[in-house]
Amino acid sequence: MEIAWIGTGIMGAPMARRLLAAGHRLRVYNRTAARAQALAGAGAVVASSAAEAARGAEFVFIMVPDTADVEAVAAGIRPVLSPGQLVVDMSTVAPAAERRIAEELKPLGVEYLDAPVSGGDKGAVEGTLTIMVGASLPGFARVEPLLACLGRRITHMGPVGAGQTTKLANQIAVALTLQAAAEALLLAKSGGLDPARVLDAIGAGAAASWQLSNLGPKIIDRDYRPGFFIKLMRKDLRLVGEAAAQGGVALPGHALMTMMFNAARSLGHDDDGTQAVAAALQKLAQA
Amino acid sequence: MEIAWIGTGIMGAPMARRLLAAGHRLRVYNRTAARAQALAGAGAVVASSAAEAARGAEFVFIMVPDTADVEAVAAGIRPVLSPGQLVVDMSTVAPAAERRIAEELKPLGVEYLDAPVSGGDKGAVEGTLTIMVGASLPGFARVEPLLACLGRRITHMGPVGAGQTTKLANQIAVALTLQAAAEALLLAKSGGLDPARVLDAIGAGAAASWQLSNLGPKIIDRDYRPGFFIKLMRKDLRLVGEAAAQGGVALPGHALMTMMFNAARSLGHDDDGTQAVAAALQKLAQA
Repeated sequence: MEIAWIGTGIMGAPMARRLLAAGHRLRVYNRTAARAQALAGAGAVVASSAAEAARGAEFVFIMVPDTADVEAVAAGIRPVLSPGQLVVDMSTVAPAAERRIAEELKPLGVEYLDAPVSGGDKGAVEGTLTIMVGASLPGFARVEPLLACLGRRITHMGPVGAGQTTKLANQIAVALTLQAAAEALLLAKSGGLDPARVLDAIGAGAAASWQLSNLGPKIIDRDYRPGFFIKLMRKDLRLVGEAAAQGGVALPGHALMTMMFNAARSLGHDDDGTQAVAAALQKLAQA
Repeated sequence: MEIAWIGTGIMGAPMARRLLAAGHRLRVYNRTAARAQALAGAGAVVASSAAEAARGAEFVFIMVPDTADVEAVAAGIRPVLSPGQLVVDMSTVAPAAERRIAEELKPLGVEYLDAPVSGGDKGAVEGTLTIMVGASLPGFARVEPLLACLGRRITHMGPVGAGQTTKLANQIAVALTLQAAAEALLLAKSGGLDPARVLDAIGAGAAASWQLSNLGPKIIDRDYRPGFFIKLMRKDLRLVGEAAAQGGVALPGHALMTMMFNAARSLGHDDDGTQAVAAALQKLAQA
């Protein structure tokens, strides 16, 4: 079985490595060629274009930054696709774009499905990603054994696009829960408390969250090294806004978090971790 | 050892019962006398005023709804207090009020400390409350064995008032994390997903929270039976706003949640559980 893997960045590279380690044959392509070349040592064949990687592969995986990148890859591989191939987009992009691409590829006898992930580069390296899949049931059944090399919680959410909508629901929850942690710690600090002790006191009750437990200590230490970039969260919040508008809802917390993360960018935090939104809050909130 | 317990409502009654069950002698008082009377069967002596309950008691516990109620109790017991008594306010009220009352009682040789709780009536019944204490170190050491009958995580946060500030940090985290769950589920629903499946897919990763896991299913089922009342959260958010202003910070998420919970009240949800804020969101968000 031949597998094409397109996009070997901070997420794509370790994911491709896991498939290689599981004994699969991979042809890899990356826009910045050096990043793909690094996988040759692990047994990957390096292709000179997305089309060259995709030609004849049973599965074509895509892991690139944004909607336009996925659309470019889809346009690039389209001429070489043939019936029975399965294209699996694991990027985080607009649900509507996924549905459109799937429609375009359907006449070729190719199923296109979306399978965005959560869990960061750590989850990619360790194969513990959460994977949210939008696909036909047969498509899901076909790809699931490969996804099992990459993640632990793999859920079929509905037809193509449903994976992305789930991911966006995840991201708005992540962003607002992070704000909850940031406001709680800032209030505590402004009231003269030791924030670390506050974390300890409230971290296991009704206020408990992954964000508070994992990013709270970093907020306190002003440690803004990235787990997940501010700039990527800004992109995801843009997609949340588009999806909300298409779904006919206006989300006030989303509007707030768009402002907070834009403020974090304005303050120079775009390449910092999302917890740097607490630094922006402190700057904006000071009376 | 004599203990006075003032305020035997939905929280105070089960807490008083736990002290009785641990073998302590209690004199109880409640504004609505029938509620105090219900504790007579468990061995409590029912007093006809807060002062009668407090006279000569080594510990005086207070568990009432709001700042004005605590101030009324403090004024009522003040004439009968004598040196060495310890007054423990477990209500959720303004930190500044606690510091003021403590100052007023200090000349009497009485230590007043704040020990608000988190964990709801379930935590009160089961003795699993989180208790955040503002007190002198000797005062904390004196009351801790009794608090151990009532809660599991008992933290000394600093001087009097520090317990309340911690509780308010907890409440703003709770409110915003609940909003995170509500917006994620509304986005998912507006995108045509099965919200229960979304909960399952995202509930264990970076979006994970107590609010999402515990109130998410209730939001989906439109089950608004109260664990914690909208009207009490509105009170707590008012206290958060006061504390933030005193600390010199403006919290945008707090402003949003004040609006959301006020909207929930306007829509008739004041006596529902906090998860009813999701119903208000859905009403407000609909394009």
